[in-house]
This record gives sequence, C-alpha cells and structure tokens, in this order.
Amino acid sequence: MLNFDFYAPTRILFGKDTEREVGALLKPRAKKVLIHYGGGSIKRSGLYDTVTASLKSAGVAFVELGGVMPNPRLSLAHEGIDLCKRENVDFILAVGGGSVIDSAKAIAMGVYYDGDVWDFYEKGGSLERAVPVATILTIPAAGSESSGDTVITNEEKALKYGYGSPHLRPVFSIMNPELFFSLPKEQLAYGVADMMSHVFERYFTQTTHTDLTDGLCEATLKTLMKNALLAKENMTDYNAWSELGFAGTVAHNGLLGMGREQDWACHDIEHELSAIYDVPHGGGLAVVTPGWMQHVYQENINMFVQFAVNVMGVEGSFRDPDAIVQEGILRLREFFIKMGLPTTLSELGIGEDRLEEMAQKATKAAFGKESPLGGFKKLYWQDVLAIYELVK
Amino acid sequence: MLNFDFYAPTRILFGKDTEREVGALLKPRAKKVLIHYGGGSIKRSGLYDTVTASLKSAGVAFVELGGVMPNPRLSLAHEGIDLCKRENVDFILAVGGGSVIDSAKAIAMGVYYDGDVWDFYEKGGSLERAVPVATILTIPAAGSESSGDTVITNEEKALKYGYGSPHLRPVFSIMNPELFFSLPKEQLAYGVADMMSHVFERYFTQTTHTDLTDGLCEATLKTLMKNALLAKENMTDYNAWSELGFAGTVAHNGLLGMGREQDWACHDIEHELSAIYDVPHGGGLAVVTPGWMQHVYQENINMFVQFAVNVMGVEGSFRDPDAIVQEGILRLREFFIKMGLPTTLSELGIGEDRLEEMAQKATKAAFGKESPLGGFKKLYWQDVLAIYELVK
Repeated sequence: MLNFDFYAPTRILFGKDTEREVGALLKPRAKKVLIHYGGGSIKRSGLYDTVTASLKSAGVAFVELGGVMPNPRLSLAHEGIDLCKRENVDFILAVGGGSVIDSAKAIAMGVYYDGDVWDFYEKGGSLERAVPVATILTIPAAGSESSGDTVITNEEKALKYGYGSPHLRPVFSIMNPELFFSLPKEQLAYGVADMMSHVFERYFTQTTHTDLTDGLCEATLKTLMKNALLAKENMTDYNAWSELGFAGTVAHNGLLGMGREQDWACHDIEHELSAIYDVPHGGGLAVVTPGWMQHVYQENINMFVQFAVNVMGVEGSFRDPDAIVQEGILRLREFFIKMGLPTTLSELGIGEDRLEEMAQKATKAAFGKESPLGGFKKLYWQDVLAIYELVK
Repeated sequence: MLNFDFYAPTRILFGKDTEREVGALLKPRAKKVLIHYGGGSIKRSGLYDTVTASLKSAGVAFVELGGVMPNPRLSLAHEGIDLCKRENVDFILAVGGGSVIDSAKAIAMGVYYDGDVWDFYEKGGSLERAVPVATILTIPAAGSESSGDTVITNEEKALKYGYGSPHLRPVFSIMNPELFFSLPKEQLAYGVADMMSHVFERYFTQTTHTDLTDGLCEATLKTLMKNALLAKENMTDYNAWSELGFAGTVAHNGLLGMGREQDWACHDIEHELSAIYDVPHGGGLAVVTPGWMQHVYQENINMFVQFAVNVMGVEGSFRDPDAIVQEGILRLREFFIKMGLPTTLSELGIGEDRLEEMAQKATKAAFGKESPLGGFKKLYWQDVLAIYELVK
C-alpha cells in the first residue's frame, strides 16, 4: 500500500425530501447564492420551485444562471463568473448532474482569480481560494457531488480538460433518489458506465497489498451492475436508484483509490471523443473501456483474473488465465449492451478519419510534448490509436 | 435503504513518516496545543521526541498531559480540562490509541462547558462547541481517530458511557503503520475484535436493500481477518498493519452504517464488563459477540446466512440454514481463539455473581427505566443475562 492523504469532507444528505432542507443548510453559510442549472428540466419537474421556496422561506437571497449543456462549456462559466462578481455571490448551489456541478466549480474558481479560469485547466497550478459550492444531484453519474474535480470543454479550442483541488469539494450534497425517476434510460446507462469507470480507474493497479480497497471496489462495481439492471426494468425503483446514487458518490470521493497507483487512461482517451464529437461521456467510456482492457491486460494478467472472477463472476480453469480474462471482458461488454450502451465508435457516429489526431491529442503528442497516459500501463499515442482501432 | 446524513471530514494522512508532518499541520490551526498521551510508551519508542521536535520546528507552543489508562477515566479528563483552561489551549493532539483519543475528546468538550463534562455522557444533549482535536494513532482498534464518538468511565460510579457529536470528529489523523510494530500481540487481537465489532454493529440489520453497504462491510471484515492473522505471524508486517489501520478507520467513520438501522447491543453489553471488571474492550467483545449472535440469529436467519457465506466462507446446503449459521458462528469463534482472544467470561476472570446486576445496568433496568438494547433484536435485561449465561 502506498502512502495517502484522504480528505472527503462533503456532507451527504441522502433520501426522500432532503432537497427541502437546502434553505436551512444555506442560511448560516451564504449571503447571496447563485443557483446554477441546466436546460430547464428542473423547472418542468418542480424541483426549481421546491428549491427556491426553501431558500425564500429561509431568507436566503439568490440569483440564477441556467443553460449548462452536457460537456459543459467554458463560455458559460465565464458568464457565471461575471454574474457572481457583479452580484457579490458568496455561495454557488448547483442543481443538476455532473455537468452542472463541474460548471459551478469552474465559476467558483474564477470569481477570486484575476486571469482566465481556463488557466487552471490548461496549466494546472494551485488554487488558493474558491467560492464554496453545494449540490442537489439530479443525475447519478459523474461523482462530482463528492469530488474536488471539474472537467470543462473549451469549445473554441475543442479541448476538454480537468482540474482538481480540495477547495472544490462541495460543502454538502443533497441526494434524493426520487429526483432520478424522470431520467431517460440513456442517462441511466451513461451514468452507470461513468460510475463504473471511476471505480475501474482506481481498481486496475500495479500496487500490491491493497486488500481493503480491492474489496471495496469490487463491492461497489457489483452493486452498480446489479442495480443498473433493476433500475432499467423499473425506472421508479427507489431502492435501485438509492444504491446507484450512493455507489456513485463512494466511487468518486477518493476512498477507493487510496494507497493505490491509479490509472485514468480511459477517461483521457474518452475525453478526446467528447471534445471533438460531443458524445456522451458515459457512452464514450462504454466504448473505450473494454478496448483498453484488451490492450493492457497482459501487463498484469492476475489483476484482470481477479476482476473477471471477483466482479464478473467468471468460473473455470485458472490454468488458462487468458480465457478467464477474455470471458470477464466479454461479460462487461454484454452488460453494457444489455444497458443499451454503445460498444463501438461507429455506434457513436465516429468514423476512422480523426483517430490518429485524437490519439495524438490524448497524449499531448500533438502539442509536441508527449505525456503518456495511465498508471497500469503507460500508453503512448500509438497505444491509444490501437485502442481506438480495437473498438472502431 | 433509509435516509441518512453522512459527514466524515477527518483528513487521514497515511503512511511512513507521516507523523513528522504534525507540526506543519498544526501551525495554521493552533496557538497552543495540549499533547495528550498514555502510559509513556510514546516516550520509550521515540514518538514523543519526533512529535515535539516537529512542533518546535514549526514554532507551535504546547503543554502536555500523560497518564491515560485503558478504559479512560473521567478524573483525568477533569484534570485536562483544568489544564486547558489555565493554559489557554486551543487545540488538542491525542498521541495514542482509542483511550487517549476518547480522553482528548472528553477534555475538548469540557473546556467551553460550564458544568461537569460527565453531563454529556450521562444526560446526552447537544454539544455547542469543542476544542478541535487531531490524532496520531498508535493502536488500530477503536476507530476514534475518524469518529465523533467518545467513551469514558466514571470510576466513582462504575459507569462507562459514550457520547457522540460532529464537533468531536478529529480535524486530521495521522496513521503510520510502523508505529504499530511494537504493540504486544494481545493489543493486536483486542484491536481486531473491536474493529470487527464496529462493522458487525452496522452490518446486522433488519433494513432491506442495502447492497452497497453490505458489500463494503463484508470486504472490510474479510480484510481485517486475513491481515490480523498475517500480523500475528509477523508483528512488523507493514502491509498487514496498513490494511488493519485503514480498515479500522473505514469501519468506524460512519460510512458502513449509512442507510441501515444499526445494532450496537454488543458494545453496550460489553461496556458493563469493562466498567466493573476493567477488562480490555476487545477481549470483552470477543466473548460477547458470538453469544449475541447465538441469541438473536433466529430473528432474521437470512442475515446470518449471508454473514456465514459471504464473510466466513461457509458452503453447504442452503436447505439447512441453521447449520450454515452455526458453522459461521463457530468459525468466528475459532478465529478469535486463533488470535489468542478469550471467548468465555471465565477466561476474562468474570464469575457468575454479578451477571444479573450487569444485565440490569446494561438496559438501565437497574435505574428504574429500562431501555432495551439493539436494533436487530430488542434486548431486555433478561436477554442480556441469557447472552452472559451463554458465554460464561
């Protein structure tokens, strides 16, 4: 096990009617709140009214900014930053899924920063201060409700980059599984692929002596797969959504990766797809992940035997580990198909013409200074291209 | 799954040499620190010197109070409260195991409280404010390094009561598994019994639809048992101690019990043993727990079949669930014996003369207002007596 520093201070309020408590929770923390949201589904569902009524009854002032799209855009974050400065906003409430929360974090970073907030995404560097953020989650997927991470798309440059800081951990996140009932089935499927990927990125490692986190990862993956199928059958299954929502938060608050070298190549490889083709992140991950597994598993076949046996329930002769791994990858792909997810680039509408360009952008080879991806196996642009080719 | 409110903000710094960072961590947080510790083993091991050197080099002033005993006593907490008031202490650093940390929390509660700090333990009530606490853990066991709980023995009244508040969650906890190398084997065994019990108290439930936390509990229990045996064979096995330390924190930071009705009867039943006979908490738990299982399992036999199969690895005919459960309880008892733990009251030196008195105190029947124990099955004093009788 490696040394680690675990800090996940986000308070999670979970269950029925918890969104009604938001005003009381904000009252001691905020003078003026920015309510940040997406395309208006929270207005149709009545959630917007519930939230604003709760704020009003607690006497918390607010302004609002909607319009966040999937793969949230830098331009809207700029707009939010200007609004917060103009209105002296001192707290941001993101009401939505990962895109809304990531956009809220981008705004939170920019308010006290003199330059362009994109600097953090492009150049890294340390964030000194940010406006505090809280969330009301409407889509279990990105795990942004309990992480310090944000991913933003710079639409002018067609770049999608991430940034992380402890200052971006939400103060609290409210999760009422009933809010997920009205999601379309694709959103369920994309969310599950994303949550599973958050576990995979931490699970597949060369670090040894990781019994506890191995077991926690495996339990989280099995919970996600079982309950994804239940929710797909009945989109108002409270218990299934509860498991998915809770597991999605555990998948990405950091715990499952503590003491392990993590991977994250699949996320980087997928980000190129959604930066250029604007495909859903979860859809891209469902395509990329089995290809990545196929390309890397021989680097440490025992890790993948463990995955196949402990997560995918493969049985058989351990004297043929390749067969066990292949069956594990096959079952994962079959699970994705059962969920209605794409498993090839062509299903995403992505042709072969820009694969090399994306591979070179993913490793930054395109920018003259290649930085290989992944902790499990170092991937150069030729590896990334090989993975795209495997799933085209 | 039940509604829940999860908040575990303690930062965990884990790994080799992390104790050297304590001065830098305290510098921005404290003007004057109370270093609180036990019987002097931290002086013999050199840890005291490392900690004080780190504080001095960071320019952090401190006073100290040693002398915490297992089953920490109210009288020492009173002494610490007086010292903190006199010296204007604004931060408490507990260097030790659960007893030291629990004693530190008692002091932290008392400094800003006008009455006797025992009031919180005896009468409950809401804690408004406490001195912040951080820890350097030397014994993985109680989980107090990441919990908001404290248990104190009122030696005059022979009462051992607990209290919990979010204000008592340590700000940070430092965990270097090398600090555990010098522990005696009994301490390893007692610690493992305590950590397992923290999971059991959350695991055994009548709440349904708890897939995620079921799996997390089972992974934590299996990690604890496997690595306890490894550490017992080699008391300087860094990886085994790493798993135990990390699992002990996960076992008690609250996560594993979220959304489930919890039990906690075994802890209450054990507390009576250590309040009167001053036996080690982990030793008492190893005795009480299998007896409790035997007494309650028919209340929901499927929960115990799941335990036997998923945790203790029992196989066999599911058409005879009783046999599966009995084999599970037997294997748990055998594990305790392998660890050198007691499994009967007589091994703890406890005779039969005060069993009824302890049973009546446990449920407060002795004080005229019985309050049955446990979430899995309500236990009255006759039940507690029956459990004591089963393991006498």
